[in-house]
Amino acid sequence: MLKEIEEQKKIHIPEEELKQRLSTAQNKLFELQMQLKEKKLPVLVVFDGYSAAGKGSIIGKVIKNIDPRFFHVHTMQKKTEEEKRKPFLYRYFVKIPEAGQFVFYDTGWMEEIVRKKAQGKYAKSEYENRVHSAKNFERQLTDNGYLVMKFFFHISKKEQKKRLDALMEEENTQWKVTKNDLWQNKNYEEYSKVCDRYLEETNTSVAPWYIIDATEKKLAQLQVMERLVEGIETALQNENIAVPIPQNVFPLKQMKKLSEVNLDKKLTREEYREKLEKLQQRLSQLHYELYKRKVPVIIAYEGQDAAGKGGNIKRITEALDPRGYQVHPIASPEPHEKARHYLWRFFNRLPKTGHIAIFDRTWYGRVLVERLEGFCSENDYKRAYNEINEFEKELTDWGAVVVKFWVQIDKDVQLERFTQRQNTPEKQWKITEEDWRNREKWDLYEQAVDEMIAKTSTQYAPWHILESNDKYYARIKAMKILIEEIEKKLH
Amino acid sequence: MLKEIEEQKKIHIPEEELKQRLSTAQNKLFELQMQLKEKKLPVLVVFDGYSAAGKGSIIGKVIKNIDPRFFHVHTMQKKTEEEKRKPFLYRYFVKIPEAGQFVFYDTGWMEEIVRKKAQGKYAKSEYENRVHSAKNFERQLTDNGYLVMKFFFHISKKEQKKRLDALMEEENTQWKVTKNDLWQNKNYEEYSKVCDRYLEETNTSVAPWYIIDATEKKLAQLQVMERLVEGIETALQNENIAVPIPQNVFPLKQMKKLSEVNLDKKLTREEYREKLEKLQQRLSQLHYELYKRKVPVIIAYEGQDAAGKGGNIKRITEALDPRGYQVHPIASPEPHEKARHYLWRFFNRLPKTGHIAIFDRTWYGRVLVERLEGFCSENDYKRAYNEINEFEKELTDWGAVVVKFWVQIDKDVQLERFTQRQNTPEKQWKITEEDWRNREKWDLYEQAVDEMIAKTSTQYAPWHILESNDKYYARIKAMKILIEEIEKKLH
Repeated sequence: MLKEIEEQKKIHIPEEELKQRLSTAQNKLFELQMQLKEKKLPVLVVFDGYSAAGKGSIIGKVIKNIDPRFFHVHTMQKKTEEEKRKPFLYRYFVKIPEAGQFVFYDTGWMEEIVRKKAQGKYAKSEYENRVHSAKNFERQLTDNGYLVMKFFFHISKKEQKKRLDALMEEENTQWKVTKNDLWQNKNYEEYSKVCDRYLEETNTSVAPWYIIDATEKKLAQLQVMERLVEGIETALQNENIAVPIPQNVFPLKQMKKLSEVNLDKKLTREEYREKLEKLQQRLSQLHYELYKRKVPVIIAYEGQDAAGKGGNIKRITEALDPRGYQVHPIASPEPHEKARHYLWRFFNRLPKTGHIAIFDRTWYGRVLVERLEGFCSENDYKRAYNEINEFEKELTDWGAVVVKFWVQIDKDVQLERFTQRQNTPEKQWKITEEDWRNREKWDLYEQAVDEMIAKTSTQYAPWHILESNDKYYARIKAMKILIEEIEKKLH
Repeated sequence: MLKEIEEQKKIHIPEEELKQRLSTAQNKLFELQMQLKEKKLPVLVVFDGYSAAGKGSIIGKVIKNIDPRFFHVHTMQKKTEEEKRKPFLYRYFVKIPEAGQFVFYDTGWMEEIVRKKAQGKYAKSEYENRVHSAKNFERQLTDNGYLVMKFFFHISKKEQKKRLDALMEEENTQWKVTKNDLWQNKNYEEYSKVCDRYLEETNTSVAPWYIIDATEKKLAQLQVMERLVEGIETALQNENIAVPIPQNVFPLKQMKKLSEVNLDKKLTREEYREKLEKLQQRLSQLHYELYKRKVPVIIAYEGQDAAGKGGNIKRITEALDPRGYQVHPIASPEPHEKARHYLWRFFNRLPKTGHIAIFDRTWYGRVLVERLEGFCSENDYKRAYNEINEFEKELTDWGAVVVKFWVQIDKDVQLERFTQRQNTPEKQWKITEEDWRNREKWDLYEQAVDEMIAKTSTQYAPWHILESNDKYYARIKAMKILIEEIEKKLH
C-alpha cells in the first residue's frame, strides 16, 4: 500500500482550495459530534506511522474541533510495570471509548508488532499470532458497533532524517528522539517493508487503513479530517454496523478541472482530413497487431449530451476490422442488470483477448447519473471511486489497454447543437426531454465530473479530456491518444 | 484454521438429534427464501474444499429445500476457450445472483489459486495479486449488499484416498477422478498447508470461511444448512450490509448436556473435612509457585441461583494468600460499562501475572442473562460464543490458566434452598424477587447453558460441571480440578 501513496504525493492541491476544504471539514466534524453523541456511536481513531511524522500535532489540530467532553487522547508511552504484566491487548482494550465518544490513540497496537518483527524479536509464528489477535480485536469492536479508523502517517526517509536531525540539534527537543527512532531511520527500507506487509494483512473492510502523506502538515490534517468526516457520516448512515469507506489507494495523476480546460482548440477541414487518413491507417495496422498478440483493448466514452461521442467513435471504428471489435451503447440497466452489482453488466461485455470493446457511456454512470439522480445512495457512489479503480486495475493487470475519454463542450455549444437537432427532422430522435433536464443540472454535473476525473485518473487508466467544441479537433486527439496507448503496450 | 477443525471432528452428535436439527434447518431455509425474495437479498454461496469431499452431493441436498425459481447452481468445469480469454474473475463475476436469489458455486475462485500455488505455477507475487483480487471481489460484493458465504469441505488424506480408490474401481465412475485429484491426495500435506494459508488470508469478517467436516454426509449437510440459515437470518436483520456471523473455529471438547449429569454424587462430612484440608494445603503451595513463576490464573464461576457458588469460592480463597488474589462479584454493568464493549469490564479486571482473579458470574452473562432477558440482540449473543472463545484464547496464549466452573443443582434442590433462605432471617438478603422470576425460566436457562457449554468448551478452557446438590462434593471437585489445571501448567 505504501508504494501507491508515494505516487499520490505528487498530486498538488492549491493553497486556496486546501484552506477552504479544511474549514468545511472542521465545520462538519463539529456538527457530527452531536449526532454521534445522539446515536451513541463510539469512534476509535488510531494514529500509527513513522517516527517524527507528526502524529501528535495532527491530533492536536483535530481535537480543537471537538467538545472536550466528547473525546480522550491516549498517548502510548513505554509500558508501565502494570501493563507489562497484562495481556498484549490490555492497554488498548481498557482505553476504548464509551458509546457516543471519540478516543484517539497516539500509536496503536501496530507499532509494537512491526517494531519487534523488524528487529527480529519474534519467535516463529509469534508475529502471525499478534496479527491474528489484532484483526480479531478490530473485528470484535466493529461487530459490536464501534467505528474503527486507522491512519498511517507516511514520510520519506530523507524527510524523517531531516526532522530527527532538527530535533537533535535543539537542546530542549533532544529528548524526544529515541533509540528506536534512529534505528528506524537507519533501517528505513527494511522497516517500511514490514509496515507494508502489516498494513496489507490488516487492511480489512471493517477497519481499513488510511495512508496519510504527512510531508506537509496542513495537507496531512486535511486528509485526516476529511476521512474522519466521511467515516463518521457513513457509520451514522449504516444501522448496526459501522463499516467505513475504504481508501482509494491507487496511484493517481494530477488532472485539470473542466473549468481550466481550453475549449478553443481547432482544426481546419483540410488538416482534419489529412491527419485522419494517416491515423486511421496506423490504427488499422495496430488492430491487427493487437489481434496477433492477443491484447484486449477497452475504450470508454463519457461526455455531455451532444458532445460528439457518436461521431468520435465512428472515426475509430472506421479503421477497425469489424470482426475484431464491438461497440456497446449503455442505456439504463435492464431489470436483470439492475438486480445485480452495477459492474456486472460491464464484466459481461468485456472483450476477449485480442479484441476491442468500445463503451458509449460506461460504469462511470454510478458516479454521474446515478449519483445525481439519486439512483444509488451517498455511500454507494462514494465507495464507487475505489471500486472502479479496482475494476480497471483488474483489467490492466489482465493485460488490457484501458483508454478513457471525457468529451467536453461548453454550455453554449451544447445549446447550439440541441437547437440544431430539434430543427433538423432527421436528427430530432437524438434530442429528448431528458437532455433538456440534464442541461439544467449542468453545474452539478460539472462538479461530479471533476470529482470523478480527480479520483479515477489512475496512472494505469487515466482520463483523457477531449476538447470537443470543435469536433475535428476532438476526433484527431482521441485517435492520437488511442494509438499512443496501444503502441506503449505493444512497444 | 484446518488444525482446529480436526479437533472439532471429535464432537459426536447423536443420530436422533442430528435428524431433528436437520429437519428444523430445512424448514427454516424454506421459510427464509421468501423473506430473502421480499427483501431482495442476493446470496452467493461458494463450496470449496478437497477433491472427493462431496460438495456436489451436498449442494443437491441443500437445493431440495429451495424453490427452483430462486436459485442457480454453477458447476465450474474446465475453463471454456471463451473464459480463458477473459480476466481471472470473469467466470465468477458473470454468474453472481440477482437480488432475492441464491447462487451456488461448485468450487469458486479459491481452487485455481491454491492449485497453482501448490503446484508452483505462479511467478513471484502472482499469488499475492490473486489473493488481493479475490478479497477485493468479495468485499465489493458485500459492500453492495450481497451475502457471501464460503464453505470449505474438509476430509482427511485417508478418507480422500478411500473415496478416490472407490471411484477408480468402478468403470462408470472412473472418469470422475482427474489427474489433479490424484496429485492432491499424493501431496495432501503440502496442499493442505497452501489451503490453510489461503483460508487464513481470506477469512474476512464480511465473507468468513466456514470449515465443514465432510467425513459424514449427514453431518456435513447439517453444518451447511445451519450456517446458511444463520447467515441469512443475520443478513436479513442487518440493514444495508450483510455481515454474517464468523465460524467458531476453536478446538472443542465433547460435553454432556445438563440433563445427562448425575447429581446424586455425595461426600460424607468426614470425607469432606479430610479431603478439604489436604487440598487446601496443596493449593496454598501452588499459589506461591504461581507467584514465583508469574503465571496468572482466572477462575470463572457460573451456575443457577442458590447453587452454592459463594461457598465454593470461599473454600478456595481460604487457601490463598490475600495479597495474591481478588474476587470479582459481577452484577449488572454500571452505565460507563454498559456504554462499552461487553468484554471491557472483564479486561479491566484481569489479574496481573502471578495473581489469581476469581469471577463470581462472568462474561458468559452475554449468552445467559443478556440473551434470555433480551438485553442484547440475537446477532449479538450468537456472535458472542466466538468472541468469548477468542477472548479466552488471548488469555491462555498470554500464559494464563483459565478454569471455568458451571455449578449445577436440580430444580427441587433450588426450591428447598430458596425456601430455607426465605425462612432464615440472616439469609433473607440472599433471596430476591428476581431469583423467583429466573426460576420460572428454568428450562430456557438450561437450553442456553447447554448451548454455552457446547460452544465454549474449548480444549484450552473447557467448562467443568460441578454437581452441587451436595455442596461438599462440589467444593472438593472444584478444588481438585483447579489444582490439576495449575499443576498441568507448572508441570
